[in-house]
Amino acid sequence: MAQEKKLVEAITSMNEDFAQWYTDVIKKADLVDYSSIRGCMIIRPYGYAIWEHIQKNLDTRFKETGHENVYMPMFIPESLLNKEKDHVEGFAPEVAWVTHGGSEKLTEKLCVRPTSETLFCEHYANIIHSYRDLPKLYNQWCSVVRWEKTTRPFLRTLEFLWQEGHTAHATAEEAQEETIKMLNVYADFCEKILAIPVVKGKKTEKEKFAGAHATYTIESLMHDGKALQSGTSHNFGDGFAKAFEIQYTDKNNQLQHVHQTSWGVTTRLIGAIIMVHGDDSGLVLPPAVAPTQLVIIPVQQHKEGVLEKANELKDRLSKVARVKIDDSDKMPGWKFSEHEMKGVPLRLEIGPKDIEKNQAVLVRRDNREKVFVSLDELETKVTELLADVQNGLLEKARQMRDKKTYIAKTLDEFEKTINETPGFIKAMWCGDRACEDTVKEKTAATARCIPFEQEKISDTCVCCGKEAKHMVYWGKAY
Amino acid sequence: MAQEKKLVEAITSMNEDFAQWYTDVIKKADLVDYSSIRGCMIIRPYGYAIWEHIQKNLDTRFKETGHENVYMPMFIPESLLNKEKDHVEGFAPEVAWVTHGGSEKLTEKLCVRPTSETLFCEHYANIIHSYRDLPKLYNQWCSVVRWEKTTRPFLRTLEFLWQEGHTAHATAEEAQEETIKMLNVYADFCEKILAIPVVKGKKTEKEKFAGAHATYTIESLMHDGKALQSGTSHNFGDGFAKAFEIQYTDKNNQLQHVHQTSWGVTTRLIGAIIMVHGDDSGLVLPPAVAPTQLVIIPVQQHKEGVLEKANELKDRLSKVARVKIDDSDKMPGWKFSEHEMKGVPLRLEIGPKDIEKNQAVLVRRDNREKVFVSLDELETKVTELLADVQNGLLEKARQMRDKKTYIAKTLDEFEKTINETPGFIKAMWCGDRACEDTVKEKTAATARCIPFEQEKISDTCVCCGKEAKHMVYWGKAY
Repeated sequence: MAQEKKLVEAITSMNEDFAQWYTDVIKKADLVDYSSIRGCMIIRPYGYAIWEHIQKNLDTRFKETGHENVYMPMFIPESLLNKEKDHVEGFAPEVAWVTHGGSEKLTEKLCVRPTSETLFCEHYANIIHSYRDLPKLYNQWCSVVRWEKTTRPFLRTLEFLWQEGHTAHATAEEAQEETIKMLNVYADFCEKILAIPVVKGKKTEKEKFAGAHATYTIESLMHDGKALQSGTSHNFGDGFAKAFEIQYTDKNNQLQHVHQTSWGVTTRLIGAIIMVHGDDSGLVLPPAVAPTQLVIIPVQQHKEGVLEKANELKDRLSKVARVKIDDSDKMPGWKFSEHEMKGVPLRLEIGPKDIEKNQAVLVRRDNREKVFVSLDELETKVTELLADVQNGLLEKARQMRDKKTYIAKTLDEFEKTINETPGFIKAMWCGDRACEDTVKEKTAATARCIPFEQEKISDTCVCCGKEAKHMVYWGKAY
Repeated sequence: MAQEKKLVEAITSMNEDFAQWYTDVIKKADLVDYSSIRGCMIIRPYGYAIWEHIQKNLDTRFKETGHENVYMPMFIPESLLNKEKDHVEGFAPEVAWVTHGGSEKLTEKLCVRPTSETLFCEHYANIIHSYRDLPKLYNQWCSVVRWEKTTRPFLRTLEFLWQEGHTAHATAEEAQEETIKMLNVYADFCEKILAIPVVKGKKTEKEKFAGAHATYTIESLMHDGKALQSGTSHNFGDGFAKAFEIQYTDKNNQLQHVHQTSWGVTTRLIGAIIMVHGDDSGLVLPPAVAPTQLVIIPVQQHKEGVLEKANELKDRLSKVARVKIDDSDKMPGWKFSEHEMKGVPLRLEIGPKDIEKNQAVLVRRDNREKVFVSLDELETKVTELLADVQNGLLEKARQMRDKKTYIAKTLDEFEKTINETPGFIKAMWCGDRACEDTVKEKTAATARCIPFEQEKISDTCVCCGKEAKHMVYWGKAY
């Protein structure tokens, strides 16, 4: 038990220093290691396995909605990046430039893709000719690079993994439908798979994507009351199509520009999982993305029959869950805290006395509830408990989010609330950029989104007092 | 039928101009598109779906043999690349250099990974301490960049997709066992899944990987008689471990260097599929990696009941195969050649007369055999035929390879054979680099490998006439 204590003590408490707690968890749970390249992380097997589950589930959803995967080059020639004015202004300041290939200096420098709109547009201009070629529903899994000044594993890194959907449609209506459809796919994925409730809405003009007509977002709330933009879906209208001359002949033989969308989520979702579900014992993983859903810890494993029984249970349970057995020579207490640190949803303990009674002990990671289960009904019980943990985590996260969601009718109230009890602030807005800027200046909070579900907090803008147009979710954000 | 003819005519015949045939196929089968970055390709949905099947099957095999996936940064600082002497000499001349991030000039330039040995080594030095930490069996799926002068889609591109396995072991024996195990995984995968027979063997010192102790390879033979290195597995010994100080404490509390391996296959496997199985009508895909295994072509689809029946069959057959229906408004003949071009293994034709007779027509892509099948036994027959096509392709490829494998006892014979009937040349070798160089100079052929299965062609080296040490497979290579 001395060792167990030591392991737990090694993590800073959440309430004491949230940032340090986060750093402790990602290191101790073996999610990442640092590399010698500033701001780039090594995603270790345990962290990468979570990403693989995210990928697999999302990829299935993309394919079910008719999307196909492709792969674009990782380099973008400077001239291509420059084609869409807003886009290049948004991204050029933060790209990495390749200037030499082998020993030769390139005649045109290439940037490492920060996002691939320009590449998709160039390709679409090549392959789209007729209305029969539409829609094009493409997606790409890859890594992208943005030369950020301050970085943090998963949340903001120089290089990160993501998927970027890029679609082209015949009409503005279809593009808008696609934009919202994919936002809903993300929202449903976050709630059902990551157990993270999200607020869906539209970004303000100030916060929208460089080159987009409109940006939609899902926003989630972390344990420290900060917001995390968890996925975005952009409607480009025909802006890129005009810059890149992506045209098709419609049924009446008229040339038309296509209407485009793009949408993406990144490895930052892993950061969200950590900061929404984690606690002072470490990571807490939703079963749907947990690399190991149940860990078997043999108690008094040197005693005859214990390891055999543990292995027998592993074989049985492997049919209903992702199971590991920890038969290392560490003490059970040490193993308990190690797998708690890693957020394994369920722990099964089995020792000589349990075997005698034909039972096992099951312990939930989320609330530490402990139950004795007959070995005869183990599969049923484990399946049930995993579903309970998954649902329980979503419910708990929703309660946390709701508890940390406040309303403000005046800027003073806004400032006081966000400083004393950080969280989402719901407040009215007149729609003027000036007020958005003032709010940020005074409170450090940004407009997270204009939610689809509008409420009337008051009649007037929280900042200028003029007539309000929208209710906005505000917050300090990662 | 006029349209069908036109489509087929659009491909150059293999025998006329193999290189042009290859280019025609990859374009007409919608595998790739060119981009504005020299030597980089866009992998289109149909090409990428083949890669996804390759990935999925290999990834399962890697996991079954105990490997875990990770993700390393895509950049390598110059100083890190420089740590292992042979390695940097091999790769530095062909890397892309990032010199600027945003608007700032970097203090140390970064190369875009051409391969990730150095990154894995740095990480291993960080995380390996004790014999309990071994073995480390890691793999990574990513893209890498090599600044090649001449490029060709799939076969040699500036950027390509691959997987790179990197492992660390306690002993030299374990590392050697791993090296051969993964070579066998590749060989089995190529034969069973890609229907491509391979020769397994060791590379000569001249041909081995920069920094390796020994390189093993699987070599396949293309339709034009050229060899393609299809996968490699390297034993690094403790060379990298010494350069990067990767040490562990063994059971006797002694510091030891680890022994390492790496192994990889790339998107060039898609090039192999094209050049081994393709014909003058286009691509021929092994069912195991075919995005569509069976295409349903309704005949006289405007007639009552035809489309309904075709869709009903699609639903039924989707349970046993990857099925598509082509109900576009093109002529059946056009559809036939389009799906032949794309290499779909089976075609099902169904028209009013077939429906009357409760039958369908099934046509194999590989040998164009046509059978009439009762609708009652369609699932069984399709499953059978797909297995037949898969096996038939391997058998056909083996016959082609064997037919194009020659022996040579003298350099004259060698030269004449490889020029008149390109293929593998089996010939004896004394083991001297000088002879290897002479063979290359005179014949343009390189030592593909010293095969595990040795034969005695003669007693003396094909070049110098001295005593022979090994039988070698030689060939001109991609």
